[in-house]
Amino acid sequence: MPQDWTSLFAQNMVGYEGYNIGKLFKHLSNPDIISLAAGLPSPDTFPTGQMQSVTNRLLQEDVDSIMQYVLIGGEPGLRQAVIELLRTEDIDIGEENLLITTSAQQGLDVVSRMLCNSGEVIILERPTFAGAICAFEMQKPIYAGAPMQEDGADIGRMRDILESYAKINVKPKFIYVVPDFQNPSGITMSLEKRQALLDLSYEYGVLIVEDSPYRWLRFSGQNIPSIYSLDQERGGNHVVGIYTFSKFFCPGMRVGFNIGPAPLIEMMTNIKEGSTLCTPKYNQDMCTAFLTEMGWQEHLDRARVYYREKADIFLKAMERHFPPQTGVSWTKPEGGMFAWAMAPKEIDTMELFHKAIERGVAFVPGEAFYAENPERNTMRISFSFPPKNQLDEAVGRLADCLKEMLD
Amino acid sequence: MPQDWTSLFAQNMVGYEGYNIGKLFKHLSNPDIISLAAGLPSPDTFPTGQMQSVTNRLLQEDVDSIMQYVLIGGEPGLRQAVIELLRTEDIDIGEENLLITTSAQQGLDVVSRMLCNSGEVIILERPTFAGAICAFEMQKPIYAGAPMQEDGADIGRMRDILESYAKINVKPKFIYVVPDFQNPSGITMSLEKRQALLDLSYEYGVLIVEDSPYRWLRFSGQNIPSIYSLDQERGGNHVVGIYTFSKFFCPGMRVGFNIGPAPLIEMMTNIKEGSTLCTPKYNQDMCTAFLTEMGWQEHLDRARVYYREKADIFLKAMERHFPPQTGVSWTKPEGGMFAWAMAPKEIDTMELFHKAIERGVAFVPGEAFYAENPERNTMRISFSFPPKNQLDEAVGRLADCLKEMLD
Repeated sequence: MPQDWTSLFAQNMVGYEGYNIGKLFKHLSNPDIISLAAGLPSPDTFPTGQMQSVTNRLLQEDVDSIMQYVLIGGEPGLRQAVIELLRTEDIDIGEENLLITTSAQQGLDVVSRMLCNSGEVIILERPTFAGAICAFEMQKPIYAGAPMQEDGADIGRMRDILESYAKINVKPKFIYVVPDFQNPSGITMSLEKRQALLDLSYEYGVLIVEDSPYRWLRFSGQNIPSIYSLDQERGGNHVVGIYTFSKFFCPGMRVGFNIGPAPLIEMMTNIKEGSTLCTPKYNQDMCTAFLTEMGWQEHLDRARVYYREKADIFLKAMERHFPPQTGVSWTKPEGGMFAWAMAPKEIDTMELFHKAIERGVAFVPGEAFYAENPERNTMRISFSFPPKNQLDEAVGRLADCLKEMLD
Repeated sequence: MPQDWTSLFAQNMVGYEGYNIGKLFKHLSNPDIISLAAGLPSPDTFPTGQMQSVTNRLLQEDVDSIMQYVLIGGEPGLRQAVIELLRTEDIDIGEENLLITTSAQQGLDVVSRMLCNSGEVIILERPTFAGAICAFEMQKPIYAGAPMQEDGADIGRMRDILESYAKINVKPKFIYVVPDFQNPSGITMSLEKRQALLDLSYEYGVLIVEDSPYRWLRFSGQNIPSIYSLDQERGGNHVVGIYTFSKFFCPGMRVGFNIGPAPLIEMMTNIKEGSTLCTPKYNQDMCTAFLTEMGWQEHLDRARVYYREKADIFLKAMERHFPPQTGVSWTKPEGGMFAWAMAPKEIDTMELFHKAIERGVAFVPGEAFYAENPERNTMRISFSFPPKNQLDEAVGRLADCLKEMLD
């Protein structure tokens, strides 16, 4: 009988399935299915012509360096461009506060790997980003969740959690939030809640991990300062910021960056070194070019118009196809790529998902976005990827399936 | 006083320094120093012209996909090309036995992260690859080392280790070896020892992790089958193979692959998903092109001639500058990029290193290559990177420093 090596798995890995719900989609290659599932930036927003010309030049000028190892912490040119980008966000960091990552997924992994022992507590939003749960799960933490409200996570609930843990001398390792157009809910945290969250951080000595993939994709409403910048007004040092080029430039480069207190950046750099070494130079150089010569602000202006149009079409379709008697409600995002819909309590959206696939539309069942105790009547609907002229049809198909289940 | 977050580090990370000796070199930018330190493939071997033309075509044909997310397990085209490459090595694997990695460093990390709890045992060679120690250290294992001999690790010593652990019911998680032109020693494991190692694996039910970065860089002597292929003759399933494009194509793409038993590949794929998601498509596509249209065999023929020439010049220089009375001995590699030198016992090569830097030559002090109890009179000397006409001068400078210390 062949050896069963799986019995040798490390304790943290027993039962680990990665982003298990993602595996639902692996075999959905039917081109008739309109996908409201994936959080993919639309290729319509990619600056492809500039990609080609810049690549051409880089490969002419610098092919030897592109083919070689580079520094773990990131290319000097990209680091400088990121530092300048963050100044436009009123974030003032030095070299010691920055790590270029091989994607924000790595950014999340190095944070929880740095801080969490198995059985330690992470506070997060309910729902929250599934990819973050996927990273955190490798440390086998315990989760304490605060429900999302219209203006962001319930900070009062977070206070209760911290208070009850403080009573038994347990210090949660960090509070993880996605304050801007959260994936999956599309909800943005208000300025008041950001300040209240910082109050908690100082009061209980707990680190905030602020994940900001969609920050530059606001298409309506007023910009709200990042928690990182608000913390700098208080002296700083209480926030680790996680960023990526995936949503505002393109995912294919696999480049992001973490910012934060120097001793944490140093340790995360060591962990990156042990787990992947450097981020490839070509991919970094393209991100540098995006920030320095591709006109990123104009690019983003176009992307915002593009996503706003899609969001408008999508939200109108929701109103048309889900009249009040269906009992379905949904969020109205001011940016990003996602809305969150809540069906009547008796609906299990995993069941709905399978019906929807047959009807030719996909979404992500909400259970993927809960670290524990999922609310099974929820779903994430992404409006970013399908062509505009298919959005209404897609929502219509979804509504048909749901109405059938409600009948 | 600002919060000291470092007191919150996870137990596995307390004191973790990444590749700490690498930090010695970070500030060695003096162009007068000839480096025998870095394990860098020479850019003289890079197919730069083909990089440019293939890149040009890919960006014309497929820019949208290059800018998008791709599958975690790797691009279908690259996976197919790797499966075919391995057939030339008498290794026959299916899709379920293969994971494309974001570099062999990730390949090493996912293996130890999958298998090792803190305090569990890894058996390895003394000396061994510092990057592997750097990956393994994040799991805080215990190491048991077997000394390198002329024909590879002392397998008898490995048997003793396994035997003594078996007596107390401890099962080491895996045996890590670099059988071909090992980094750092340049030593190749004999066929007999490879078979003896497999015997141990079957007898004690312990997995072998075979790291083969240099396998295609043999420049003299006879090819010896990989442990993976020898295991397939016994039915297979006892080896995880770790490969990279870094040494036989170029490091800048950050692409490698792991092969092994399907349930282990599945778990490593999940861990890759949680820690970085996909490997960037451009970088994978360049590796595919390397294997399918850049004439990799002719490229490697040229690289082998190139490295053989450098090795010859280097070894002659060693003979000239280190006559027997210096008490220095060294290995004679048949491939790869490294030789290992042993100075008289009283020499601490870290001290030698600092003198050498002043004299304008760098190497890596041997202590970097021991998971524990380093032999401080050793050093790794790389002949791959400096120009041929500087090799003799570099070795001469090193000899001068050593002679001074011996006086």
